[in-house]
Amino acid sequence: MSATARGRVLLSVTGFNPHRWYELLSKEREVVLEPEPLDDPSIEYAVLWKQKRGILSKLPNLKVIFSIGAGVDHILADDLLPDVPIVRVVADNLSEHMREYIAWRVLDHHRQGMLYRSQQRQKIWHDARQVLAKEVAVGIMGFGHLGRQAAEMLLPFGFRINGWSRRPQEMAGISCYSGEEGLTPFLNATDILVVLLPLTPQTDGIVNRSLLSKLRKDGPLGGPCLINAGRGRLQRDDEILKALDEGILKEASLDVFEQEPLARTSPLWNHPRVFITPHAAATSYAEHLAGPMLTQMDTFERGEPLRNVVDRATGY
Amino acid sequence: MSATARGRVLLSVTGFNPHRWYELLSKEREVVLEPEPLDDPSIEYAVLWKQKRGILSKLPNLKVIFSIGAGVDHILADDLLPDVPIVRVVADNLSEHMREYIAWRVLDHHRQGMLYRSQQRQKIWHDARQVLAKEVAVGIMGFGHLGRQAAEMLLPFGFRINGWSRRPQEMAGISCYSGEEGLTPFLNATDILVVLLPLTPQTDGIVNRSLLSKLRKDGPLGGPCLINAGRGRLQRDDEILKALDEGILKEASLDVFEQEPLARTSPLWNHPRVFITPHAAATSYAEHLAGPMLTQMDTFERGEPLRNVVDRATGY
Repeated sequence: MSATARGRVLLSVTGFNPHRWYELLSKEREVVLEPEPLDDPSIEYAVLWKQKRGILSKLPNLKVIFSIGAGVDHILADDLLPDVPIVRVVADNLSEHMREYIAWRVLDHHRQGMLYRSQQRQKIWHDARQVLAKEVAVGIMGFGHLGRQAAEMLLPFGFRINGWSRRPQEMAGISCYSGEEGLTPFLNATDILVVLLPLTPQTDGIVNRSLLSKLRKDGPLGGPCLINAGRGRLQRDDEILKALDEGILKEASLDVFEQEPLARTSPLWNHPRVFITPHAAATSYAEHLAGPMLTQMDTFERGEPLRNVVDRATGY
Repeated sequence: MSATARGRVLLSVTGFNPHRWYELLSKEREVVLEPEPLDDPSIEYAVLWKQKRGILSKLPNLKVIFSIGAGVDHILADDLLPDVPIVRVVADNLSEHMREYIAWRVLDHHRQGMLYRSQQRQKIWHDARQVLAKEVAVGIMGFGHLGRQAAEMLLPFGFRINGWSRRPQEMAGISCYSGEEGLTPFLNATDILVVLLPLTPQTDGIVNRSLLSKLRKDGPLGGPCLINAGRGRLQRDDEILKALDEGILKEASLDVFEQEPLARTSPLWNHPRVFITPHAAATSYAEHLAGPMLTQMDTFERGEPLRNVVDRATGY
């Protein structure tokens, strides 16, 4: 079968240059960046990151949407989205990068990295009391594949680990909480909160002052810490700042923000107890992800079922 | 048996307040801070950190020396040291703290913490390319108990691990090198060098410009990184600075220094690619260590052999 006889791929992304994706997908299929005509019947697949609104709405033969990234809120935000299956990325390198980021930030809060960097700037030689990992409880909110991978990295250090998820989950060595009724007990028992939730109408803005004020107050670190590596709109930037300044929160590691890129005017940039990365915890590299997408297009055309299809009812 | 009938303990430390040690050791034995007279025959044990020179030399009944800390170079530095067994600390909390410190610093170099902190200060939103852990080789120099514990924490992330030791060692999943002839191949294959060597006449100043220039030059991190959590005198502070400024070394995490506390005049404090902690990687807390020392004194008096005795010929 020639490349042109097979379903063509629409590639629509916002916020980064799609060159590499275009190059790699083009090795096996014809790729278009703007559909022309808008109802081009040869386009059967779409590969998307925050696609242009309505760009898919008139395609008569669109069969599968592929998300660049583990979350799909950036796709579902399009109110003109046609009703075809959405496949999300599940890739080793994404979960490896995420578990590294989580372990790195947990260890930095646990080992008092912010204090030592501040002391270094002032040339202060002072050995701060170091608590043991077993005294510190890390709470992972959103206990799916990524959350479990992070827990597996943290367990050998001896941290206590709590997991919270919408539906009940289990994992050896972890205290699992679930549902609305499990949330407050989970937060009350947590010193370092790791947010890995998907963005859905239920989780929008969930990381606010009220939630942060439920974290363990008398923990060994001298105050709770927040790590958000999920989605920016899970949090309220201004309420995190308020919580830091009111002493509700000790420190925060933020990889995501309500608006990205983070505005230069945001007080988060300069806050002495905030560590910022530019949505870099786990980046989707075309080199690792384009191949598996092309493979799924082939197997789908041979009649095999799609893997990692999103449940639109829950949004993940 | 009353507390006074048993061997008394001399406690001699430099650089920190011995109050807590005094308090805890005193629960079971009589403790003296300065022997009076100098040849007091009731003193049978000494608990030391950089003891006053010659303080032990006249004690006629000294039976065992206990080191506060995993290394014993601070004790052996005393040229008037009597020839009795020296027991070094082997404690879970010490190795736990050390493995945390190593993993924390390896992840910070791997995840480009220095770059992102610099970008944050300048309010730059830029996602730097992230390499995979399997592309990065961590080389642990000094592959004893602490080195193995650190390797066990790093292996699950997927890092390649090299170990170097004076005598041949083996560990599953690790490329082990040993001896003088193994050193250059070990360094050539290493991107992040972790130094955990004991300080002996053979290792004094071993971390110099010549050694650093043998680290892998074309590695994925854009240059090799150094982590010294061993002893300060293993390194030459000025040669580390030279290596950083000549582009031989990309970044360094230093917990120890030739002179401690590090002088306020040292250019290391302000170097943008150096992270400093004040000999805090793995602190010996009296709360965790005094009990096991008292237990060893009791078992020794019952005729049982001492554990963790230092070989004076090798110095560890």
